[in-house]
Amino acid sequence: MRVLGIDPGIAIMGFGFIDKIGHRLVPVQYGSIETEAGTKTEERLVQIYEASCAILDKYRPDTIAVEKLFFNKNVTNAFIVGQARGVLLLAAAQRGLPISEYTPMQVKQAVVGYGAAEKKQVQEMVKMILKLQTVPKPDDVADALAVAICHAHSTSLNDRLNGVKPS
Amino acid sequence: MRVLGIDPGIAIMGFGFIDKIGHRLVPVQYGSIETEAGTKTEERLVQIYEASCAILDKYRPDTIAVEKLFFNKNVTNAFIVGQARGVLLLAAAQRGLPISEYTPMQVKQAVVGYGAAEKKQVQEMVKMILKLQTVPKPDDVADALAVAICHAHSTSLNDRLNGVKPS
Repeated sequence: MRVLGIDPGIAIMGFGFIDKIGHRLVPVQYGSIETEAGTKTEERLVQIYEASCAILDKYRPDTIAVEKLFFNKNVTNAFIVGQARGVLLLAAAQRGLPISEYTPMQVKQAVVGYGAAEKKQVQEMVKMILKLQTVPKPDDVADALAVAICHAHSTSLNDRLNGVKPS
Repeated sequence: MRVLGIDPGIAIMGFGFIDKIGHRLVPVQYGSIETEAGTKTEERLVQIYEASCAILDKYRPDTIAVEKLFFNKNVTNAFIVGQARGVLLLAAAQRGLPISEYTPMQVKQAVVGYGAAEKKQVQEMVKMILKLQTVPKPDDVADALAVAICHAHSTSLNDRLNGVKPS
């Protein structure tokens, strides 16, 4: 199963494709879609949409995992990130791909083992789990891989639960 | 000049096309794109995107005017509306259409004559200016027509200003 993890944003959208082969998680491709500040919002959305379509068509994930975002204060930011996330979800839904959402706490729980882990711990665990030489940069890329790992783990768990469910 | 006014939303997106012929504003088509609560967000975004593309291709506006949204409290709502607005802007930008934004105060100023006008006054003025039999419903449609009128008026003003500019 190939999972695409996404950390949505308008300036930087992190993405990470991982393959789940048995119990192993293998990184396939990861990086970021970046758009320039000062460019019109609608142009940035076109760039994000086109780049999203391109990576979806090139690496053909089976499923997509996106971080469920919480905004405490910055409403304007929520609105702007919402627009970027909207075009990514559109590209995914146009290809019939299932989309799962995970809270930051679920991601930390899955990757580090406890929900209050710090960002740096998450990044180090992403590096270890995927056997990478270095922590992927920028942070958005590591975050995208973390949510992909979270999805892969949670489906493993569901598989096991299904396996032991008395019928 | 044909202007499309938009009041973005995920449950109801109001739209209104008006033609500016000399000093007259003539309604062409108005209505709403509606999606059902309980449907997955990504499906709703696909529906909004496809309907947006369909009306843009059918009524071929020269320009698009969108209300600049302000959210004081509800961050989740800002995020959700942002996603819907994102796919609309995408459809517009893919067609090379210029997009203008107006604050609610600018819209009220342009339609009623003062920026603190009440919603009902705006709706009545939309009805009068466009010589409609009744106030368009739901409110989102009247709001979309109001922002289109605002854009038409502001371009008139710019034309006049250009006309008297000493060279």
